[in-house]
Amino acid sequence: MNLKKIFFYTLISLFTTISSSVYAQKDYKLWLQYDKKSNPEIIAGYLSNLQGIVSLENSKTSSIAVNELEIGLNAMLDSKIQINSKSDGENKIIIGSKSSLNSEILKLLKTDFDQINDEGFIIKSISLKNKKHIIITAKKDVSVLYGVYGFLRLVQTNKPIQNLNIVDSPKTNIRILNHWDNLDRTVERGYAGFSLWNWQKLPDYIDQRYIDYARANASIGINGTVLTNVNANALILTPQYLEKVEALANVFRPYGIKVYLTARFSAPIEIGGLKTADPKDAAVAKWWKEKAKEIYKRIPDFGGFLVKANSEGQPGPQNYNRDHVDGANMMADAVAPFGGVIMWRAFVYSEHDASDRAKQAYSEFVPYDGKFKKNVIVQVKNGAIDFQPREPFHPMFGAMPKTPLMMEFQITQEYLGFSTHLAYLPKLFQEVLESDTYQKGKGSTVAKVVDGTLDNHKLTGIAGVANIGNDLNWTGHPFGQANWYGFGRLAWNPYLDSEVIADEWIRSTFSNDYNFIKPVKEMMIESREAVVNYMTPLGLHHIMDTGHHYGPGPWVSNLSRPEWNPVYYHKADKNGIGFDRSKTGTNATAQYASEVEKIFGNIETCPETDLLWFHHVSWDYKLKNGQTLWNGMALKYQEGVNQVKEMQDTWNKTEKYVDSERFKEVQMLLGIQYKEAKWWRDACLLYFQQYSGKELPAGVEKPTQTLEYFKSLKFPFAPGN
Amino acid sequence: MNLKKIFFYTLISLFTTISSSVYAQKDYKLWLQYDKKSNPEIIAGYLSNLQGIVSLENSKTSSIAVNELEIGLNAMLDSKIQINSKSDGENKIIIGSKSSLNSEILKLLKTDFDQINDEGFIIKSISLKNKKHIIITAKKDVSVLYGVYGFLRLVQTNKPIQNLNIVDSPKTNIRILNHWDNLDRTVERGYAGFSLWNWQKLPDYIDQRYIDYARANASIGINGTVLTNVNANALILTPQYLEKVEALANVFRPYGIKVYLTARFSAPIEIGGLKTADPKDAAVAKWWKEKAKEIYKRIPDFGGFLVKANSEGQPGPQNYNRDHVDGANMMADAVAPFGGVIMWRAFVYSEHDASDRAKQAYSEFVPYDGKFKKNVIVQVKNGAIDFQPREPFHPMFGAMPKTPLMMEFQITQEYLGFSTHLAYLPKLFQEVLESDTYQKGKGSTVAKVVDGTLDNHKLTGIAGVANIGNDLNWTGHPFGQANWYGFGRLAWNPYLDSEVIADEWIRSTFSNDYNFIKPVKEMMIESREAVVNYMTPLGLHHIMDTGHHYGPGPWVSNLSRPEWNPVYYHKADKNGIGFDRSKTGTNATAQYASEVEKIFGNIETCPETDLLWFHHVSWDYKLKNGQTLWNGMALKYQEGVNQVKEMQDTWNKTEKYVDSERFKEVQMLLGIQYKEAKWWRDACLLYFQQYSGKELPAGVEKPTQTLEYFKSLKFPFAPGN
Repeated sequence: MNLKKIFFYTLISLFTTISSSVYAQKDYKLWLQYDKKSNPEIIAGYLSNLQGIVSLENSKTSSIAVNELEIGLNAMLDSKIQINSKSDGENKIIIGSKSSLNSEILKLLKTDFDQINDEGFIIKSISLKNKKHIIITAKKDVSVLYGVYGFLRLVQTNKPIQNLNIVDSPKTNIRILNHWDNLDRTVERGYAGFSLWNWQKLPDYIDQRYIDYARANASIGINGTVLTNVNANALILTPQYLEKVEALANVFRPYGIKVYLTARFSAPIEIGGLKTADPKDAAVAKWWKEKAKEIYKRIPDFGGFLVKANSEGQPGPQNYNRDHVDGANMMADAVAPFGGVIMWRAFVYSEHDASDRAKQAYSEFVPYDGKFKKNVIVQVKNGAIDFQPREPFHPMFGAMPKTPLMMEFQITQEYLGFSTHLAYLPKLFQEVLESDTYQKGKGSTVAKVVDGTLDNHKLTGIAGVANIGNDLNWTGHPFGQANWYGFGRLAWNPYLDSEVIADEWIRSTFSNDYNFIKPVKEMMIESREAVVNYMTPLGLHHIMDTGHHYGPGPWVSNLSRPEWNPVYYHKADKNGIGFDRSKTGTNATAQYASEVEKIFGNIETCPETDLLWFHHVSWDYKLKNGQTLWNGMALKYQEGVNQVKEMQDTWNKTEKYVDSERFKEVQMLLGIQYKEAKWWRDACLLYFQQYSGKELPAGVEKPTQTLEYFKSLKFPFAPGN
Repeated sequence: MNLKKIFFYTLISLFTTISSSVYAQKDYKLWLQYDKKSNPEIIAGYLSNLQGIVSLENSKTSSIAVNELEIGLNAMLDSKIQINSKSDGENKIIIGSKSSLNSEILKLLKTDFDQINDEGFIIKSISLKNKKHIIITAKKDVSVLYGVYGFLRLVQTNKPIQNLNIVDSPKTNIRILNHWDNLDRTVERGYAGFSLWNWQKLPDYIDQRYIDYARANASIGINGTVLTNVNANALILTPQYLEKVEALANVFRPYGIKVYLTARFSAPIEIGGLKTADPKDAAVAKWWKEKAKEIYKRIPDFGGFLVKANSEGQPGPQNYNRDHVDGANMMADAVAPFGGVIMWRAFVYSEHDASDRAKQAYSEFVPYDGKFKKNVIVQVKNGAIDFQPREPFHPMFGAMPKTPLMMEFQITQEYLGFSTHLAYLPKLFQEVLESDTYQKGKGSTVAKVVDGTLDNHKLTGIAGVANIGNDLNWTGHPFGQANWYGFGRLAWNPYLDSEVIADEWIRSTFSNDYNFIKPVKEMMIESREAVVNYMTPLGLHHIMDTGHHYGPGPWVSNLSRPEWNPVYYHKADKNGIGFDRSKTGTNATAQYASEVEKIFGNIETCPETDLLWFHHVSWDYKLKNGQTLWNGMALKYQEGVNQVKEMQDTWNKTEKYVDSERFKEVQMLLGIQYKEAKWWRDACLLYFQQYSGKELPAGVEKPTQTLEYFKSLKFPFAPGN
């Protein structure tokens, strides 16, 4: 064989392996990809309006803003935009906060400034000396940064930038992530690796991730972060740790992000050497005041404390025969001199209270309405149980008009398939925010409670339990990033449409190609309902396996507290299934405004999506589609499985629009989701079939394993537990 | 103010913030940066010899090899090298294993093939039909991949590629990482985040990191990995986990990496339902045989088991009055039919044995010499205690001529400052490998024991306890990557010089600029001695704080087992300090060959680096430099601190040669190291001063804290514990 032959000796299948290094970045860069635009006309169009950047300010934050504009625009437009050049040309982007503007510009923007709050921004095409420019301004430099990200989003999503006239303010004050991160870096309900906070190396080592985390949050308007788990460890309040917290606060500050901590109620005993943590004890109150002073000396803009008290074993004022008001107000006094707030969680239910768990938070907290200090905000989960795939809105919303209530959403998917299931949660968030409480008549939506407009509160907020960990892609699932993004956008404006958010996110994260956007957006929008269908259709809830909440466990009935057992929630028996919370049952429906009570309380008017949440329903009950409950439920489980199959089909067609790494990742994860959707369907239907005694209807695939098999599955090292 | 004024209104300090995205990659890419060469002449020189790539084979491994060549060369040389083009030109790189070569090439390489073993490779400039080419070949395709990495290394390090004639084979068979990774993803003695193995998402989700991990290992010739902690969990041997292990094995296979597991000796009870794990019990032996069969059915090239038995509480054959030979041989029989090996650890010491801990492994294992089955290799730590900053070589090396012994190094810095201290460990490894055991006369080095040449063993190996975690930069410290790299290079060839390895690593990781290489290499080479000096000079050992081993704890004396207490090791008293292991003491020196015993056993000939390891020495003893022991020790502690200060000075001058992210990271870490070096110095000297009763000599900085302060420090969440 001669050399020539050697060269063609074999057919080589090249390019099957792709070097890691090229793409791991894509995963890491979140929605700030700044991909170069493929269409030269689009680039030319933008560049004709972007001939330079002029920064009027000199602060860390404004440097970040200029840098971000420069990096983003140059990358997307393949350009080298001049910064603060001496040229006197037009089409510059001028950025700077109000105090840096000259009188000519100020005059032009007078009415705009009247419209925005401290965190709002203005993006406007203006004419100065007959030269066109774009101004991005705000009352504070951090808000200018928000404007810069808002402007970049226009370019990221291929929106026009001629004749801009954007005036936008966030509708809530506290837009905050709750990290359930422990000091050993495990993350309770974390499915994306481990905690970002490397306490061992702090304060002296600043991980690049802290900066990138702050940047990502600033880009969507998040302005606060609770670093530690609500199941708190008092050590975070010792000088050894506060020094580390201070270092993080210093990193986050230029990005407008305030640091908050969880406060363990018994800290005065554990680290303060006191004999009690009684909130009425003068030494205890003094201890907290001094602790607050110590913290604010290090971190002058410290946000305040998030407190889980007398809930699931956490200590609290009730240990001393005091109540939540006593506890919250004592701590509120400690941080008030420094402008701090107390976020007091309403997630309470007691093993000593035999009443319906869904009623307990309302029963306990509503009588406190009007009794909390001004800097206390009560943090309420979106539903009355616990972050289920679907819950009716929490009855506390609208029921405490004299008390600021903040929303607690869960971004991490404790009950929605961990980070292996694609579930676009802004759809869930929107459903809750749009719910009408009727507390002040029709139109009293949860969003209006949360943004303070319904009851005229100034202190407002939305918290999201973070889905962020130290995985290379931050959230474990590439589409988990959309939930972080969408949470931030809805915290900024609870009236945004989740579909619009999905559109923005897809364009910023993957592609502006309509052929990609359309099917992928549809997939995202449908994804949450798919999870509901294959896990907990028709109002079923909390039938996940015990402890870790991974996979189905409707049979679990041996836990020490009755309300920890799935059987408590589904109450399946020969007669039917579901939790009767109507007048004939626990009467939890009475906690809603009468208009809502009427709807939920009546099996005929109750939305079928919430049917088994509020009613115990006969297996033969006729659903609106004419199916019996049993057949309808079985078909819903099957529908969920089919939907995941469709998601797979959709994704498999996107290969040419996506880098191969993320394409494969999502493909693998959808494969797991499909497998697990079938697991949910089969395990739940086999289990419930014991009670219904009925065959599976046509169209529902037969289980390939026995109920005993499903019950035998154990996951001793499931994460997040 | 007019617009023109606005433009120059402020002096903007731009570029203080750098976008994350650009650089996080550098950290991630390890020594495979493939940076574009800055000198066009160098590029032109290489390209004149590199006109194309011709691949003769079609396998996953050969695709990886071609892909790597293509990515590496194109990036470094800013080129688009043709792959398998039809051109008949010269200066091609021809790659393929022996079976793919034509007779003409085979004839040219006959003597070269005679020189290499199965894993060796040939890189040679050849002339075919009067045309010059470079051939990279080997007996197996994985070995061709080694050759490709060897070739790329030449280009990475600016070495000439004309007239190549490289014939290189690894000197050991098993070049393996030991991951002390638990199933919950915590890593025992891990300081770089958490385990890479995401058991939750396996087998269906293949994290890109698995591929990048395999690639990095292949590039330095590592061919095995033990996935799980030596303190083992039997669940890894259940089908639920073996399915996941299989998925990893499938990823690693094309990179030539075999998967091994740790076997918990009591697994037959825990997961097998047996009543005993007695190695002489027929049912137990059968269980292991069947377990091996089950594993090999899934993973035909499974490497075998690593076993920690009857050590630090782990179960083992002694629980049944059997010995290590009984246990190891029983398991060896199980894997023998499939070509598997048992790596049986010699790291044993007993709470029931009052003799010097340093003597126990030798005492227990040496009598077993010759009794192990052929596929058993005994894994021995480099020293007789436990991975200290410095230990004399383990007396077992050379003392069991009829038994293959493999080296166990610790790459993770359990006792050397975690991942915050820069300590270039190949220097330590080299020191051990070069040590002369004299067991067969002068020149009987540890390296010759390990590579099998001293006692003519075919089964050989070097294990390194991995320092790899899911940190973005893999190893926590950018220079920790050098320890992984250097371990791999020394496992391939235990006679390599650590300075040469450092040179290669710096060039591949950072820069080929001599102005950078020279000082940084000096810093690396000195770094390990600096750690010895500020932690445990003159043969001191195991005086780290308890449990986590972070920071000094020479005062610790309250642990349940005497040999877990630092006071056991330093034995400081009014008369002096050090552990008398000479004839007047425990006589541990008698475990060495007589030539070595004479040197170590005599305080006058004992190297001062090991002085307090072998002798209890008076505070007034005169060191070779004329100082008293007390003064000399104090000055050593100070020298260590000074060395870190020099390392800081060195690094601070490198800013222009390094990306800003890694520059800052190392700068911050050296800051921590300096702080902690002083902590070590002050805490140890204050403590020992209680016994010496002497003042600190001139030149030693005064402590700024009290001994009580140092003793009060607590690190409840120190990682890796």
